[in-house]
Amino acid sequence: MKICRVSVEGSVSYGLVEGDSVYLIDGNVYGDYVVTNTSYDLGEVKLLVPCEPRSFWAVGLNYAAHIAHQEQALDTDRIQRDAQEFRPWQKGTSCIISTGSKIELPSDADYVHYEGELAVVIGKRAKHVDALNAPDYIFGYTCANDVSGEGEWSKDLSNWRRKCTDTFGPVGPWIETDLDPHKTQITTILNESVHDTGETSGMIYNCYETVSRISEFVTLYPGDLILTGAPGAVEQLNPGDTVEVEIAGIGRLSNPVV
Amino acid sequence: MKICRVSVEGSVSYGLVEGDSVYLIDGNVYGDYVVTNTSYDLGEVKLLVPCEPRSFWAVGLNYAAHIAHQEQALDTDRIQRDAQEFRPWQKGTSCIISTGSKIELPSDADYVHYEGELAVVIGKRAKHVDALNAPDYIFGYTCANDVSGEGEWSKDLSNWRRKCTDTFGPVGPWIETDLDPHKTQITTILNESVHDTGETSGMIYNCYETVSRISEFVTLYPGDLILTGAPGAVEQLNPGDTVEVEIAGIGRLSNPVV
Repeated sequence: MKICRVSVEGSVSYGLVEGDSVYLIDGNVYGDYVVTNTSYDLGEVKLLVPCEPRSFWAVGLNYAAHIAHQEQALDTDRIQRDAQEFRPWQKGTSCIISTGSKIELPSDADYVHYEGELAVVIGKRAKHVDALNAPDYIFGYTCANDVSGEGEWSKDLSNWRRKCTDTFGPVGPWIETDLDPHKTQITTILNESVHDTGETSGMIYNCYETVSRISEFVTLYPGDLILTGAPGAVEQLNPGDTVEVEIAGIGRLSNPVV
Repeated sequence: MKICRVSVEGSVSYGLVEGDSVYLIDGNVYGDYVVTNTSYDLGEVKLLVPCEPRSFWAVGLNYAAHIAHQEQALDTDRIQRDAQEFRPWQKGTSCIISTGSKIELPSDADYVHYEGELAVVIGKRAKHVDALNAPDYIFGYTCANDVSGEGEWSKDLSNWRRKCTDTFGPVGPWIETDLDPHKTQITTILNESVHDTGETSGMIYNCYETVSRISEFVTLYPGDLILTGAPGAVEQLNPGDTVEVEIAGIGRLSNPVV
C-alpha cells in the first residue's frame, strides 16, 4: 500500500494512493482506520510530508561507495574513524519539507549537496527491539534527501547547520508499506539526468539492525523517521536545479532548489 | 508567572502556579488564554513536562568553568577545539521526562553524570531573529538536567546514546516567564547536599545570542527548548540517588535515579 498525507479542500487527511487517485483515510494509519470512498485525482491534492515524526534520526556513512566518495572529497582520517562505529545523529523535524517544496540554499553556505536515501517509517512504539523482530515495528519506507552543506560548514561536527538547516529534509512523496528495503535501488536525478544510483543491499547497517540498535537506548514512536545513508557519490545543488530521489517500488520525491 | 502543565482528574491542562495552588488555563498559553477559577493544590496534581517542544536544542561547553572541568576529566584537545565555535546539537524530544520521573541508567553505561542547566522556552515562531529582539521570542525559562554518559560513551561524537538515551532529559517543574536569565544562579543538589553552583552571567553565548544564532538557520516554534550549558563541575549519578536542579526565581526540578 502507498500511504500519503494530503491537504485537500482546506483540510488535512491521510490517504491511500492507487494509480492516479487518492482515497481519503479515516482513523489512525498506525492503528485502526478505514479507507473511505472519497477520492481525488493526485493532481487535485497537495501532497504533504507523509508522516508526523517526533524524531528524525539518520545513519551516516552507511555504504562503502559513499564513504569512499566522501573520503576523497573531504578529510580521510575523520571519515575512516567515523565509519567504524554505529553513530546515528538527529536531523530533527524542523528541516522537513514535502515533495514539491523548495530547498532553500542559505546565502552563506558555500557548497550544498544532495544525498538521496531510503527512509524507514516506524509503525509501533519500539524499545529494545531485536533485529529479527524489527520488521514488525516498521510501517513502511519512503524517499528522502539528506541535503547537506560542506565546505566551511563541514566543520559543524554537530551537523547543526550542515544537515539541519530549514528545508534540508525533503521526505516523500508517500510511504510504501510493502517493500523489501534491502532489495531496491535508489536513483538521484538532477535536472532530469540520472546522477547517482545505488542498491540498498549495500547498506553497512541494514534497516532492521538500525531500528534495533537505536531502540536499545531510544524509544521510537509511530511516524518517526530514520535515514539510512546515501549509497554513492553526491553532487552540488545550485539555485534553479530540480533534484529528485526515486526509489524502485516507492516513487519519486522532487524538489526545486532556490 | 509560573506556567505548568498538569495531569489532574484524568485530563491534561496548562496551569498557573500561585503559591501552593495551580489554576487551570483554558486556551493556548503562547497565544490567547484565560486563567480559570478551577484550582488544585500542587500536591493533588501530577506535574508534566511544562511544554511540548518539536525541537530540543542544546549549547554545549558554554561556561569557562565547565570547559575547564571537562578538559581535566576528558580529552583536552577536543574540548579546546569545540569551544571555539557556536555548535548547538539536538538532544531530541524522546528523552524528555518531567520532575519526579525516574532517570534510568542503562546497564551498559559505565559513567553517567548530571548537568544542571537553564533552559530557554520559545514563545513565538522565530526565524532570523537578532539578539536584541530575541527576548520577544522567548516565553520563559525552566530548569533542566542534561544527563550525560561519559566513559566509553564519550566516543559517541554524535551524542546519540551519550546525551539522548531515554530519560536523560529531565525538564521542569514549570516555566517562569519573568526572569532575567543572565542574573540568576543554578544549584545542583545530589542527595540533599549542594554539589555545584554557578551564576548564569558566566554564559559564553547568552540566551539571546543563542536564540538569534540558531534562528539564523533553523526555525524555532512555541514550546521549543534550548539548553544553555552546565556552569561548572559535574558528578556521577548512581542508582538510589536523587538529583535536583534549582534555579533562583524558577524552582526545583527533582528526579530519582534508578
